[in-house]
Amino acid sequence: MSDKAYVLFEEQQRNRGIDLDQVKERLKALKVETPSWGYADQGTRFKTFQKVGVPRNTYEKMEDAAQVHKFTGICPSVAVHIPWDKVDDYAHLKEHVANLGIKIGAVNPNLFQDDDYMLGSVTNSKEAIRRKATGHLLECVDIAKTVGSDILSLWFADGTNYPGQADIRKRVQWMYESLKEMYAAMTPDMRMLIEYKFYEPAFYHTDLADWGMAFNMANKLGPQAEVLVDTGHHAQGTNIEHIVAYLIGEKKLGGFHFNSRKYGDDDLIVGSVNPYELFLIFYQILDAAADVDPGVSRTANNIAYMIDQSHNIEAKIPAMIRSVLNVQTQYAKALLINLDEVREAQEAQDVLVAENAVRKAFEFDVTPLLQAVREEMGVPADPMQAYLEDSYGQDILARGKGGASW
Amino acid sequence: MSDKAYVLFEEQQRNRGIDLDQVKERLKALKVETPSWGYADQGTRFKTFQKVGVPRNTYEKMEDAAQVHKFTGICPSVAVHIPWDKVDDYAHLKEHVANLGIKIGAVNPNLFQDDDYMLGSVTNSKEAIRRKATGHLLECVDIAKTVGSDILSLWFADGTNYPGQADIRKRVQWMYESLKEMYAAMTPDMRMLIEYKFYEPAFYHTDLADWGMAFNMANKLGPQAEVLVDTGHHAQGTNIEHIVAYLIGEKKLGGFHFNSRKYGDDDLIVGSVNPYELFLIFYQILDAAADVDPGVSRTANNIAYMIDQSHNIEAKIPAMIRSVLNVQTQYAKALLINLDEVREAQEAQDVLVAENAVRKAFEFDVTPLLQAVREEMGVPADPMQAYLEDSYGQDILARGKGGASW
Amino acid sequence: MSDKAYVLFEEQQRNRGIDLDQVKERLKALKVETPSWGYADQGTRFKTFQKVGVPRNTYEKMEDAAQVHKFTGICPSVAVHIPWDKVDDYAHLKEHVANLGIKIGAVNPNLFQDDDYMLGSVTNSKEAIRRKATGHLLECVDIAKTVGSDILSLWFADGTNYPGQADIRKRVQWMYESLKEMYAAMTPDMRMLIEYKFYEPAFYHTDLADWGMAFNMANKLGPQAEVLVDTGHHAQGTNIEHIVAYLIGEKKLGGFHFNSRKYGDDDLIVGSVNPYELFLIFYQILDAAADVDPGVSRTANNIAYMIDQSHNIEAKIPAMIRSVLNVQTQYAKALLINLDEVREAQEAQDVLVAENAVRKAFEFDVTPLLQAVREEMGVPADPMQAYLEDSYGQDILARGKGGASW
Amino acid sequence: MSDKAYVLFEEQQRNRGIDLDQVKERLKALKVETPSWGYADQGTRFKTFQKVGVPRNTYEKMEDAAQVHKFTGICPSVAVHIPWDKVDDYAHLKEHVANLGIKIGAVNPNLFQDDDYMLGSVTNSKEAIRRKATGHLLECVDIAKTVGSDILSLWFADGTNYPGQADIRKRVQWMYESLKEMYAAMTPDMRMLIEYKFYEPAFYHTDLADWGMAFNMANKLGPQAEVLVDTGHHAQGTNIEHIVAYLIGEKKLGGFHFNSRKYGDDDLIVGSVNPYELFLIFYQILDAAADVDPGVSRTANNIAYMIDQSHNIEAKIPAMIRSVLNVQTQYAKALLINLDEVREAQEAQDVLVAENAVRKAFEFDVTPLLQAVREEMGVPADPMQAYLEDSYGQDILARGKGGASW
Repeated sequence: MSDKAYVLFEEQQRNRGIDLDQVKERLKALKVETPSWGYADQGTRFKTFQKVGVPRNTYEKMEDAAQVHKFTGICPSVAVHIPWDKVDDYAHLKEHVANLGIKIGAVNPNLFQDDDYMLGSVTNSKEAIRRKATGHLLECVDIAKTVGSDILSLWFADGTNYPGQADIRKRVQWMYESLKEMYAAMTPDMRMLIEYKFYEPAFYHTDLADWGMAFNMANKLGPQAEVLVDTGHHAQGTNIEHIVAYLIGEKKLGGFHFNSRKYGDDDLIVGSVNPYELFLIFYQILDAAADVDPGVSRTANNIAYMIDQSHNIEAKIPAMIRSVLNVQTQYAKALLINLDEVREAQEAQDVLVAENAVRKAFEFDVTPLLQAVREEMGVPADPMQAYLEDSYGQDILARGKGGASW
Repeated sequence: MSDKAYVLFEEQQRNRGIDLDQVKERLKALKVETPSWGYADQGTRFKTFQKVGVPRNTYEKMEDAAQVHKFTGICPSVAVHIPWDKVDDYAHLKEHVANLGIKIGAVNPNLFQDDDYMLGSVTNSKEAIRRKATGHLLECVDIAKTVGSDILSLWFADGTNYPGQADIRKRVQWMYESLKEMYAAMTPDMRMLIEYKFYEPAFYHTDLADWGMAFNMANKLGPQAEVLVDTGHHAQGTNIEHIVAYLIGEKKLGGFHFNSRKYGDDDLIVGSVNPYELFLIFYQILDAAADVDPGVSRTANNIAYMIDQSHNIEAKIPAMIRSVLNVQTQYAKALLINLDEVREAQEAQDVLVAENAVRKAFEFDVTPLLQAVREEMGVPADPMQAYLEDSYGQDILARGKGGASW
Repeated sequence: MSDKAYVLFEEQQRNRGIDLDQVKERLKALKVETPSWGYADQGTRFKTFQKVGVPRNTYEKMEDAAQVHKFTGICPSVAVHIPWDKVDDYAHLKEHVANLGIKIGAVNPNLFQDDDYMLGSVTNSKEAIRRKATGHLLECVDIAKTVGSDILSLWFADGTNYPGQADIRKRVQWMYESLKEMYAAMTPDMRMLIEYKFYEPAFYHTDLADWGMAFNMANKLGPQAEVLVDTGHHAQGTNIEHIVAYLIGEKKLGGFHFNSRKYGDDDLIVGSVNPYELFLIFYQILDAAADVDPGVSRTANNIAYMIDQSHNIEAKIPAMIRSVLNVQTQYAKALLINLDEVREAQEAQDVLVAENAVRKAFEFDVTPLLQAVREEMGVPADPMQAYLEDSYGQDILARGKGGASW
Repeated sequence: MSDKAYVLFEEQQRNRGIDLDQVKERLKALKVETPSWGYADQGTRFKTFQKVGVPRNTYEKMEDAAQVHKFTGICPSVAVHIPWDKVDDYAHLKEHVANLGIKIGAVNPNLFQDDDYMLGSVTNSKEAIRRKATGHLLECVDIAKTVGSDILSLWFADGTNYPGQADIRKRVQWMYESLKEMYAAMTPDMRMLIEYKFYEPAFYHTDLADWGMAFNMANKLGPQAEVLVDTGHHAQGTNIEHIVAYLIGEKKLGGFHFNSRKYGDDDLIVGSVNPYELFLIFYQILDAAADVDPGVSRTANNIAYMIDQSHNIEAKIPAMIRSVLNVQTQYAKALLINLDEVREAQEAQDVLVAENAVRKAFEFDVTPLLQAVREEMGVPADPMQAYLEDSYGQDILARGKGGASW
């Protein structure tokens, strides 16, 4: 049936003026990075439930990540978190990962779990602690060099819980000084992606609270610094795709951390709460990719897509596969938007026609398309089903409980 | 100076028609329960920073709680959490606590940290797990009987993370059946306080998501079941004092968990984000306490005030004292509202005068009043200062790090 | 191509165990009421832009509504708002409407635009105003009798803007007394649907602020009173489908006002912000419709679906058609959920399989199904296209600007 | 009694190390601008209730504003809105206003009530409309020159209601081009204050949605462009004082529109929802005013404070006086923060002491201080009481209903 479905799909899209060859090419080029910590035990402040079969170390996390790539074909890299993924020999790790058919992606420093950082890391009023934090950032640049990564992904838990607790303006300066030093240590091919977060774990103020603060920091640092958008890090009601469009227009959007949330930073499976929002994000990206301004289109085509989730109750590897598939599905749907049609309606100021030109692409079932693309890529047409039928999920149960956690 | 200040304050309030003797009497009658877990290490999902001097067991938690009562005079009871406060001999614990000059207050079952409860406790689709959960509830009734507590305080982490994960309507029934059994086991003097929570740790749906669901459950169970309002458990923008007024009007408000938050359920020190909201809550309570309907005034006068906070970065005992003082301060201010003045303005439909009649009570400095009351109660005029000058805070440092945590 | 598409769709769904005949039957039975005011000029507090061709009176509103039914086949009734739709002769209006092939649906009293109601209608502290408001409610019951409507749909703007402005508890009583009188005037076949709203136009407290207050009111009034859920009337992050499931479980859900919003009560086209939410609402309804409890399934099958939107910038009739089609689309998708599959996964406690069983139905393209259903119903396969090609939209431009507004 | 109270207050503050002379000097220097439209009829989208006595034209609005200054002494200027305040002869208006003892403050263009602007003004895809909008901006610069104002205050209703409706990135450019032209027309002493808004009246995206977009625009325009913070224009949970501190640190905060809200942009009386937030905003400003960086302190000392409210149900002039007094009260309280004490606690990393050092200033009753200051300024000690006892409020009732509205 799949064949019939695809033939029909092709005919349907051709009639709409969609160039399916280009769509398929872009789908094959899509890369979604998964995070090493996504394979480990995670929880809420109330409880981390320990799962059977969770990786016990970084090497096993990489093995799990390799499975996600094996079945989806679009996850060739894994983000690491230091020191969660600290190993004695990073060159050896790099080799191990290469043998698994994948590579190490973004390097993420961790500046929130050392006791010294309770009241701030690069923003701590104690110089010695800022120094220590900066040292860790520089260490991560070195690790990136060793493992061959060109992305440093920065999220800071820095902030305060109470009014008056700290000097907000001084902390801005301190963070800048630290990042400037890190920036200087990067090689010219490296990018520093600066993440922001609305709240948690700091509950009064977060030093990089929104895209504006991350953007301003990136502007001050230079062209190798860009903003990273985590879809769960905004106030309720925020139009995230607007921020995405705006940052691309400013040539400063560097990457994404994808996840979903209903209220807080719930870190649920991507696309499980409002898949249309994800689709609209991709619409803005694809619209920008077609911009006549080469800087804008270059930015839109150079975004690092990364998953950042916390699977508290569900099986880890299948949950990651689900997220990756959901990203791929919404990307595929967005590729079916006829941008010319949208633009014509915009120029005619026909609100309903313009809205419809975007939304109707969302309503197509892209299963036949994705199955065709996967077949051409040499991966299973139904990656989830294939993974569940594979023995890997059973084999790792031998690891028992008590795996790594963050 | 304090004397002069009080004399002036007295004159000022007398001129406004405030009966200061009654105000003082009510201030002396105010009781605020502190939670045993509030003295233990707590954190966010990212990190629990371990503090030096944190109690290592329930007995030490009680000792810390006794200090808060010693210095404030209004915290004679301590809520316990089972199994965090599980001891071999509850009668012995009761005696120990009595020797400290305090007593055990609300008994809180914990149905969210056992692996069995990952997908629900009293709402779990597996009967054996519901049975186990109900057993724990009954155990807590027994403990309450043993320790002489008349309040069972119920918060459930039950909920789901994804659409379709569970049968929402069946879970309502299952919870009801379990609570009915618990209700039947209570002695006639006992009250069951049912707490609700908007989100976290379940991120898609919480089985008791709002006051309406807790209220409906309490209605079905009977007169000994009432609603507990945790100030941090509402959606942004919710008018909490409206809910308070409404529940008292329905004679179904049983208690409070006080804490503050800026966005999530941040569990910050009470009164640190919007002290006016706390004042307005007390305004509604005091207004209802003066109601001609005896059921309404009885309800308003029989509310259990409890602190429920998570001190992630600040010193435990002083943070608790701060919260207690903030509650006392806002209660004192609310007692200065001239309710007749408000009602007259309401009847005259003069919006600005009515608003002013409430707000102006908030603007008084109640320090002289509180100092006078404390003097009459035989506790330090400045409890925080007195505690900090006392040796207790230093002495407990000998406990070292690694205390109890939740 | 449509035929091929439907054949393929049918095969696909049959393989999944979906009974397409039943699906089609239910799609044909779906009724969505449109509101007379949705055809009139509407705006924000900043500006109501006047559109050319907007109806100048109730008769013309009915004519426009009849068009929506003509092209979609599922909008046979129109809600009216009194006094916006006040006419001298309601029997004549009823006849006019019948001649248009439709009928009058819910009757909506308006208690928020008379100067007397500035500080409350049925909750006003002045008895004379409450009396007047109750009189209007009784008038609406009479109108309903005359026009043959069995639904009274109540939304109150009542509330306050400032703390202290009014006596919250007394207002609860006053509203109850008024509604009790209205309830008594209804014939046994009539239903009173009680709507709630989180905020606006009252900004401090709304007398019926959430489902819990509407539900409690309906409970006190009796079996003919039920709750009406307006999808835009909740705090951010609220799980609306949870409330829907809960209310059906309590046999107290009576109807919906459909619209979308990103932040406030934006009253945008249904399904334009988060179509998945609408799908999940229908999932809960259909799940309940299959419940073994006859009261639950009866409730689920007896819900009044109504549109309530404010088309500030877009063309009125096409916007209404778009909303109706979006409702139909999500309903159709929800009908493709294999409820047995969901339940099996729930019983097996397989979170990912259960989530997938729901979500995958959302990913189907139901266009072939809807086209087939419409063909069988004798309406255009593409109602929007057909309306735009029809001359009606052009003809009404002769009405000019300055139509009715609310 | 007032004297005794002030003597006591003075002693108390002197003991805390507060320089009351400086505090009084700053209180006398505080200026709060009121808006001409705040004296006119305003409402919600549901209804604008018409008040008796509302000004019928700009001249009468100025007369009302002059009353607020007369009784408070701190409102010497009035913001105007063009075309709401369009007059034939601005020089004559200027003279009239001067005769009232006040002057014209910020000039606010209105680009949201002309039919042409329904889909955007300076961001409209039609060049002719952008041209018209820019012309209006230039007209406002001319008016400012004529009336002697040095502030152009810009709020745009521009945005979209639906995904795809317009090209988000192009609109950024179009707005920039328009503002650049306006900027060029300003004299060197003029400031352009750029306001942002989270939502409403556009419901999908607002072209200047947050401080970051306004800030980036101001940066591109030049030093005479700054950001204006309207306290009601943020998502729920946003830390506004953080944004204030951040913008001052960047030397780009130009002014405020003060009002309160519980959920939406409710435009309620300042300080009626969370007065502590207003206090914390002033804390950040005063902390910055004491900064060693002269650019930072200059910015903090050069902020334009303006009221922007919508009195839907309450009497206009008293509501404005209430707001002004609330601003003054919180400013006075913030002046009582001992900044040295805060900084010492921050350096010692004592969270609780630092928090307390800020909060305790909030708890003082500043009534004696304000009465003393007012006496020295030659205005009534209780401005509200004095206004209510004055005949002005009665006299204007002769204006009748049907005053100006926006």
